[in-house]
Amino acid sequence: MNTSNPFSVAIIGLGSMGMGAAKSCIKAGLTTYGIDLSSDALNELSSAGAAGVSHNCSDFASELDALLLLVVNAKQVDTVLFESGLVELLKPGTAVMVSSTISADDAKYINSKLHARQLLMLDAPVSGGAAKADQGEMTIMASGSVEAFDALEPVLNATGGKVYNIGSEVGLGATVKIIHQLLAGVHIAAGAEAMALAARANIPLDLMYDVVTHAAGNSWMFENRMKHVVEGDYTPTSMVDIFVKDLGLVSDTAKSLRFPLPLATTAFNMFTSASNAGHGLEDDSAVIKIFKGITLPEKDA
Amino acid sequence: MNTSNPFSVAIIGLGSMGMGAAKSCIKAGLTTYGIDLSSDALNELSSAGAAGVSHNCSDFASELDALLLLVVNAKQVDTVLFESGLVELLKPGTAVMVSSTISADDAKYINSKLHARQLLMLDAPVSGGAAKADQGEMTIMASGSVEAFDALEPVLNATGGKVYNIGSEVGLGATVKIIHQLLAGVHIAAGAEAMALAARANIPLDLMYDVVTHAAGNSWMFENRMKHVVEGDYTPTSMVDIFVKDLGLVSDTAKSLRFPLPLATTAFNMFTSASNAGHGLEDDSAVIKIFKGITLPEKDA
Repeated sequence: MNTSNPFSVAIIGLGSMGMGAAKSCIKAGLTTYGIDLSSDALNELSSAGAAGVSHNCSDFASELDALLLLVVNAKQVDTVLFESGLVELLKPGTAVMVSSTISADDAKYINSKLHARQLLMLDAPVSGGAAKADQGEMTIMASGSVEAFDALEPVLNATGGKVYNIGSEVGLGATVKIIHQLLAGVHIAAGAEAMALAARANIPLDLMYDVVTHAAGNSWMFENRMKHVVEGDYTPTSMVDIFVKDLGLVSDTAKSLRFPLPLATTAFNMFTSASNAGHGLEDDSAVIKIFKGITLPEKDA
Repeated sequence: MNTSNPFSVAIIGLGSMGMGAAKSCIKAGLTTYGIDLSSDALNELSSAGAAGVSHNCSDFASELDALLLLVVNAKQVDTVLFESGLVELLKPGTAVMVSSTISADDAKYINSKLHARQLLMLDAPVSGGAAKADQGEMTIMASGSVEAFDALEPVLNATGGKVYNIGSEVGLGATVKIIHQLLAGVHIAAGAEAMALAARANIPLDLMYDVVTHAAGNSWMFENRMKHVVEGDYTPTSMVDIFVKDLGLVSDTAKSLRFPLPLATTAFNMFTSASNAGHGLEDDSAVIKIFKGITLPEKDA
């Protein structure tokens, strides 16, 4: 690689994780393109130094060495790569890092379609939240061929703090992420249940939050999301409906393995109840609103 | 207070938390007595510099300024203080710090009986694990009168990292601890459920553990307890039956408040199933043994 021919990557999906990952690619010196439906997101990345931004990838597809997909679900991955005709414009050997949370079966299906076009795929879901993405410190749980890992090394280095090689089989990365989401979802729902009980027992929620975050009952999600409840601010970091989707994937995985998941099933039902009650587009901590007969903090004016 | 008349405290119950708290009192220069049924525990504390150790408290009851109770449950608190006749030997104004996990109703009942004998009570459950207790850095969630807080200041300083004053009403400390245990119990059971699913999906458990502890799905309990599963070592830090008790207290609290707790109820059932299957005296991470059709790591010889 030399300066006249730097490594080119397009990030598709500039949400909280995608925007951070794209900025981290710019900071690492990669020629970075950004794709999103939101013009605001495109303007933000353009100001941060993107080589190009667009609502679709066609304009610079043939120049790319790699794509990083951080769209919401498998349907969007399919639309972006295949229905749009994008795969036909990519050079053979272009590496596609699929970092959306999808099922192992979907990951395998997408891999087979990319493979048929001589394109490489890394099954590489991520975690860590927007702050870690901004710092280029995402946790990446990846599986795929040595060729896919090698081809994506500049992107993995730019965006990842911890990069796990789960194995060579596409689908393993997806499975590890889904099991991770089981924990993340149950922890948010458990945090909501505990804070709701505290509200019912007349324990001040800011005090309850302070105690838990200094004791063995703490979780990453409790500390991050129950702060929103204490502040009464349900502006979405990640929405209730994302956990309806992710715990649905957990449930699908369990069904295909004939494996019982008492807690994940319960948490899935709690997020689904919250969505059904009209809170689907609020922050996922709004799952606490399924508990009635309590007064929750309201946002300061 | 002067050197000829130092502050005297007896710690009753030298389990993992009580032993650490007692050693912390010795380190802080308090005249420290230790009470336990186990001679091994008494010998350990004696070697650490206790002023006295005994199977019962009668010998030095009249010299005490304070008692710290870290026995297992409310029944044991009742036996130690009242059935044994100990309260009749204590000086009026002696302060009793009740740090066992008990219900708010039991805390109030014990307080009323101590009050009738002109004894002070602090409703002061603790968290943090054995390591924090050893360092004199327990998290203490306390409620009670100003007099009780003042009288126990040397003990709170010696044993507490964070001391929360939840309010003046006995029972509030117990309630905060019970809500904390809701989270702790659900997090252990969720960790077990996630690791069991990983085993079923042929993900190496050490890798799964490493990913989660570097990502947003982590919890204090996952990091602490799932290490035991990875190592196949179910030597109890805290036993399955402790969570049968504590989630039972969560359930009692919810019942008295007519409040639904979908996740805590499910986790309670999981620990109860583990106890019923013969794992009650194993480490609480042994709740994973309720999942069948998987192979778990075994302890190295």
